[in-house]
Amino acid sequence: MIKINTGILAVNGLLTMTLVGQQGVLAQENAKGTAPNFIVIFADDMGYGDIGVFGHPTIRTPNLDRMAMQGQKWTNFYCAAPVSTPSRAALLTGRLPVRTGMSSEKRRVLFPDSKGGLPQSENTIASLLKEHGYRTAAVGKWHLGHLSQYLPTNHGFESYFGIPYSNDMDKIENTDYLTLIENERYQAYNVPLIRNEKILERPADQRIITRLYTEEIISKILEYKNEPFFLYMAHSFPHIPLFRSADFKGKSLAGIYGDVIEELDWSVGQILETLEKEGLAKNTLVVFTSDNGPWLTFNTHGGSAGLLSGGKGGTFEGGMRVPAIFWWPGKIKSGVIMEMGMTLDLLPTFCKLANVTVPNDRIYDGYDISPVMFGTGPDPRDVVFYYRDVDIFAVRKGAYKAHFFTQSEYGPDARKEHNPPLLFDLNVDPSEKHNIADKHPEVIEAIKKIMNQHRATLKPVENQLEK
Amino acid sequence: MIKINTGILAVNGLLTMTLVGQQGVLAQENAKGTAPNFIVIFADDMGYGDIGVFGHPTIRTPNLDRMAMQGQKWTNFYCAAPVSTPSRAALLTGRLPVRTGMSSEKRRVLFPDSKGGLPQSENTIASLLKEHGYRTAAVGKWHLGHLSQYLPTNHGFESYFGIPYSNDMDKIENTDYLTLIENERYQAYNVPLIRNEKILERPADQRIITRLYTEEIISKILEYKNEPFFLYMAHSFPHIPLFRSADFKGKSLAGIYGDVIEELDWSVGQILETLEKEGLAKNTLVVFTSDNGPWLTFNTHGGSAGLLSGGKGGTFEGGMRVPAIFWWPGKIKSGVIMEMGMTLDLLPTFCKLANVTVPNDRIYDGYDISPVMFGTGPDPRDVVFYYRDVDIFAVRKGAYKAHFFTQSEYGPDARKEHNPPLLFDLNVDPSEKHNIADKHPEVIEAIKKIMNQHRATLKPVENQLEK
Repeated sequence: MIKINTGILAVNGLLTMTLVGQQGVLAQENAKGTAPNFIVIFADDMGYGDIGVFGHPTIRTPNLDRMAMQGQKWTNFYCAAPVSTPSRAALLTGRLPVRTGMSSEKRRVLFPDSKGGLPQSENTIASLLKEHGYRTAAVGKWHLGHLSQYLPTNHGFESYFGIPYSNDMDKIENTDYLTLIENERYQAYNVPLIRNEKILERPADQRIITRLYTEEIISKILEYKNEPFFLYMAHSFPHIPLFRSADFKGKSLAGIYGDVIEELDWSVGQILETLEKEGLAKNTLVVFTSDNGPWLTFNTHGGSAGLLSGGKGGTFEGGMRVPAIFWWPGKIKSGVIMEMGMTLDLLPTFCKLANVTVPNDRIYDGYDISPVMFGTGPDPRDVVFYYRDVDIFAVRKGAYKAHFFTQSEYGPDARKEHNPPLLFDLNVDPSEKHNIADKHPEVIEAIKKIMNQHRATLKPVENQLEK
Repeated sequence: MIKINTGILAVNGLLTMTLVGQQGVLAQENAKGTAPNFIVIFADDMGYGDIGVFGHPTIRTPNLDRMAMQGQKWTNFYCAAPVSTPSRAALLTGRLPVRTGMSSEKRRVLFPDSKGGLPQSENTIASLLKEHGYRTAAVGKWHLGHLSQYLPTNHGFESYFGIPYSNDMDKIENTDYLTLIENERYQAYNVPLIRNEKILERPADQRIITRLYTEEIISKILEYKNEPFFLYMAHSFPHIPLFRSADFKGKSLAGIYGDVIEELDWSVGQILETLEKEGLAKNTLVVFTSDNGPWLTFNTHGGSAGLLSGGKGGTFEGGMRVPAIFWWPGKIKSGVIMEMGMTLDLLPTFCKLANVTVPNDRIYDGYDISPVMFGTGPDPRDVVFYYRDVDIFAVRKGAYKAHFFTQSEYGPDARKEHNPPLLFDLNVDPSEKHNIADKHPEVIEAIKKIMNQHRATLKPVENQLEK
């Protein structure tokens, strides 16, 4: 491990460090500016259709729109699970939740009474980059275990500031949801706001949480500006309950949901402007995406998956295809990227760009998608597994997606098996309306083979969500 | 009327003209470049969600995307009818089809055996502007009457080049649709290609029709470049049957529908590039939109209304809210316009910009929306009437839309009356999922009043579609 003397400030972009071990050379190089910075901005339950440039008619998102126009709008980008905890575990580890114990059918996510979390044996983007001289910070929702050993500070992040799980947990008032929102009763949700491993405030004042997260991330950009950094900004919103600061109250045409998205958009603008002002834009890759699709159960307090079917919790496209924007001015060509990508791919991609070797002691499910970003090569990703908890419900291979099981996102119905599976051509039929299983038995056979090959790589693992 | 000696070419931007009558002064001023040019690019059956910047994931539309980014993406823009003939009549006259006889329940559009058409007593954008020195041309689908007296050349257009009605008409082969498309049997549709009033070719070779239209419109831009002009470019596609030129065959990820849209996008690019190259961009307002929503009946050969419900033929948003992009570099501020607009508004808006007084001898249903374009004032449009043929099915007032009747677009069912009407808040609920009629009886009352006031302005008119 490397000790970095953070007491001595950078002079002319060179950082004085106390470097220990063989990774010292890399760390030094990185510190000299050869390594790019990474910022992941992760929305919670934002749907595919909730951003202007992804088609929303009444939510105004000028900052995300310009981020997409200057950068890349990825239209076939996926999270690895349709609910929070497993999706987040996948992004940070580059591994499917079924390998890390972070998915479960009984308890789909972690709850305040959970005793489990992301095992310390797992590498995260933060832990890998930190070992190579990166400064790291996590801000916002964690949801990978709130007991001390699971918190960001024990997973490669130097600091953490945020609400450790979903903002609707620890509900302590019985009033109905809409009345609570109307009266801005954030106190009804007794969620803690944590700095590193200590509670700062409880309940967190959710009305200003987006603003606080934004201030925190900007302070980290300014603190680390002369060193390579990885910042993980995981918003608590637009997950319900919806709150926004006074500046955004009633601002959007689209009601409180629109207000909340527009405040997140403002936050994105603050981050991009800070990077530009500090001369960091050309050396910083910013990725904006969402942990899963919109929570449709909440009607106008849930978002929209646009033209996609389904939402959060399920394995139709709306549940797992998420808005994604990559921004790196001068380094990646502006445009629309229709190749597939997944949050699983961020770990190998960032490591590649940072010249960090991913340890080969375990299976990773992500690919280095930098050839797609730079337009230098084909997409290494041709397959998406749509896990619902610990089971594969659907598989996409190229344009084709086969549903072996379907089930209402949150309905009382049991899973329904499809044999033959439903088959859709997602390029021609992104809304999954026209089943073409009878026309392509050979595609179904190929997909079954891929699924079986994948299944053979799985090993039993301790279930963290049922602990 | 003015006679313009077009035999003498323009020199240094000044046109030598033989001017007759009191409009001569205006015509001269316009000819000197004080009046802006107008180009309307009108797609046929393109859905709200069929363009990249309106959210389509696999149809690549870089030209429309950049048009929207440089210009204005209007997200609450409507055609005046959910099918072709009445929608086109409304755009060109600024009047609801119920006033011009261009709508009918029995025959929803004109057919090759129709004897009717847009009455010569109607003013069109072309006839009004032409009287004031504008050069005019119509290219593409007409569908306002194919008998001589109804053709563009008798409605203010100096020239016409195109297919006079829908490209699926005059079907002379019984083979099923998909087989025809697979074999590119454009000959199965014996539609004529007309120059002015004469048939050039029959059947028109639809495989190259988008290219021919594009060449024609560009030749008109070049011919008229030193005079003010109004060009109406009404594509025959993506109305089925779908054909595209060799350059676009298999080009799109989204199948033949995607190929067709991408060729339209190419065409838009050709127009914008020509305007830029000729130094006309700053003096030319280009409006791109569609005549109605996607023809969902045709599955993957029909488009997508994105997050909107319904499609062509019906009065849910997907039937009548259409993609709309306004482009006028340096004159209108780039951005997303969420105010309402309609194709009905183009006539009064263009006339205002051209300093042409709209004759007050009849009722117009459009508004001058230039204050919204320029950001100088509020939107004069606060109401949309959703006519299905000759009846009002729904009314939008501000954010609220009341459905008094609903009916499947092309299903066999009869109309269903709703009393109280279904009520949706389109800003918060653009997909029309959550009926809030019971919460806002006062809104319904206000809308009924508006509807009754509007109905009082209607007078019996000869039905042109049943002739």
